[in-house]
Amino acid sequence: MIKTTALLGALLLGGASAVSAAEWQTLPDRAPEPADNPTTPAKVALGKMLYHEPRISANGVVSCNSCHNVMGGGDDNRSGSIGVRDQVGGRSAPTVWNSAFNSVQFWDGRAPSLEAQAKGPVTNPGEMGMKSWDEVIARLKAMPGYTEAFAAAFGAGDTVTVDNFAKAVAAYERTLITPNSPYDQYVKGNKAALTDQQVRGMNTFAEVGCVQCHSGAAFNGPQLPEGTGFFMKFPLYQNGVMEARYNFSADNGRFDVTGNEADRHAFKVPTLRNVALTAPYFHNGTVKTLQDAVMVMGKVQLNKDLTEQQISDITAFLNALTGEFPKIEMPRLPTLANQTFPFE
Amino acid sequence: MIKTTALLGALLLGGASAVSAAEWQTLPDRAPEPADNPTTPAKVALGKMLYHEPRISANGVVSCNSCHNVMGGGDDNRSGSIGVRDQVGGRSAPTVWNSAFNSVQFWDGRAPSLEAQAKGPVTNPGEMGMKSWDEVIARLKAMPGYTEAFAAAFGAGDTVTVDNFAKAVAAYERTLITPNSPYDQYVKGNKAALTDQQVRGMNTFAEVGCVQCHSGAAFNGPQLPEGTGFFMKFPLYQNGVMEARYNFSADNGRFDVTGNEADRHAFKVPTLRNVALTAPYFHNGTVKTLQDAVMVMGKVQLNKDLTEQQISDITAFLNALTGEFPKIEMPRLPTLANQTFPFE
Repeated sequence: MIKTTALLGALLLGGASAVSAAEWQTLPDRAPEPADNPTTPAKVALGKMLYHEPRISANGVVSCNSCHNVMGGGDDNRSGSIGVRDQVGGRSAPTVWNSAFNSVQFWDGRAPSLEAQAKGPVTNPGEMGMKSWDEVIARLKAMPGYTEAFAAAFGAGDTVTVDNFAKAVAAYERTLITPNSPYDQYVKGNKAALTDQQVRGMNTFAEVGCVQCHSGAAFNGPQLPEGTGFFMKFPLYQNGVMEARYNFSADNGRFDVTGNEADRHAFKVPTLRNVALTAPYFHNGTVKTLQDAVMVMGKVQLNKDLTEQQISDITAFLNALTGEFPKIEMPRLPTLANQTFPFE
Repeated sequence: MIKTTALLGALLLGGASAVSAAEWQTLPDRAPEPADNPTTPAKVALGKMLYHEPRISANGVVSCNSCHNVMGGGDDNRSGSIGVRDQVGGRSAPTVWNSAFNSVQFWDGRAPSLEAQAKGPVTNPGEMGMKSWDEVIARLKAMPGYTEAFAAAFGAGDTVTVDNFAKAVAAYERTLITPNSPYDQYVKGNKAALTDQQVRGMNTFAEVGCVQCHSGAAFNGPQLPEGTGFFMKFPLYQNGVMEARYNFSADNGRFDVTGNEADRHAFKVPTLRNVALTAPYFHNGTVKTLQDAVMVMGKVQLNKDLTEQQISDITAFLNALTGEFPKIEMPRLPTLANQTFPFE
């Protein structure tokens, strides 16, 4: 909450100012990793299996990848994702791409790390719907291929645990980054990488104040220690027309996590990397286009009516944040003899 | 039906005889391909996208891969697959691996080719549940990435069609083959590739008569021109105990396709490649283990009580039919700006 308050103060007091060239940051080629979970090939291999594993959902058809599709933009282009039994989730799935650069996870920041996040959806009744982690671990242990993969990643012994599950998934997710966007190429010196309009939009993005929150390499705020969180009240400026149209304030955001009144309607500042691919926009997915999202942000976060030209220019710039997606080999999921799902 | 009758006659008249070494066939490194749909890299790339594309199902979460998971055994280890709205299918999903070596597709052979098969599930109300192919094509055309991929595979012009969809998916499926199993290595001359029990099982497999139907490189019958079909009545010998336990005869099989009485309870002879990975067994998935499946086959197809030793030996041999799975790079699915599923 310190962050929310601090940022809000800076925004109100400091006003808008252009970012100097030195402050435009490129996306690193490698994500930061916590000291207690270094990224290793064996962990990434296991995490990839688990991430694409539908058999750890109640009905055996929902995996992490169902809603955060790494074959696409890392989300599902929905306002609410579809969990087991066709249940529709309450918030729009954030992209998994570059999530390693968030210092907290989920729209409300309730997970202080990728590891903590990975423990959420599997046993969420509306998402993967497993009754308990005991049930998940039992299913994994029923598949010898997983016992082997956990041993390779975490050593022999009783290593098929929820903590190691989370570590492996997080290790895989730390490989899901998209460097070398046109923006990155431009910042590195290739001035032909952006169009004139995109350069104009980049400057406008800084001048009107977007960059005060959407700063840093991932455009999700300053680089903070994992677990810190960078939040902003949304909407910051109430606007009856916007509210009537998009219903933003129905969701109390981080308040529901902390119970702290200052957190009401506060949300994690999301990355803008690949934002052109992840419509619809905002926590409730009510805004269908990037143009409209830019207009909305001007209204409710900056209290400004951006001109059509500014909106178009900023949108063009945001399109330059689409990066290069790494080639990923499909995992081989453990197959097992003489077993019928759900292996009971 | 000619085939069913002919085979049945051969079985009843000829009895069992051992197969000579010259008749044991290895799986080719490349699947046969029809003259009107040669396998090209661009078609395979498109077919892979389509195969893994959930957005061409009614609720946007079911793809070909949901039930025929190429990250695993090419099926879903269920007696009935899960389609849109949690509907359970009426037959156990056959494996997609090596399906290119079937001369017809589906348990009842109702599709004379992989291309014809690919047109089935997408608009099946219980599977992917799209209302019509017009709707499918409209969704694909809404994603520019597909227009480009169809153009690359089939040329410019109006090439986003159901026929080209089917051709691309079939082309991808023709790459899903698993050569070089221990059995193949053995037949090629590496006598250490099989255990003594597996060799014994291989001989028993031939001697007791399994090989009369499960012959050829894919153990699904003789190599026949695509569209021919190699069917067998199942059960061939009615057995009250087996029927009470497994309920095989509730399904009329190919009769429901042709209306021909001779086809009642006739099914395509399935491949035994990777059979150890694809429990549960038979068209209705009521038999949970490979051991039991071998026992059942002895009873109802050969009218024999195989000994425990024979069953164990044959099962050991069948485990040697698990091949090498190719590494597959994940497709990049088209992402599109300013669109919310279902892109309407």
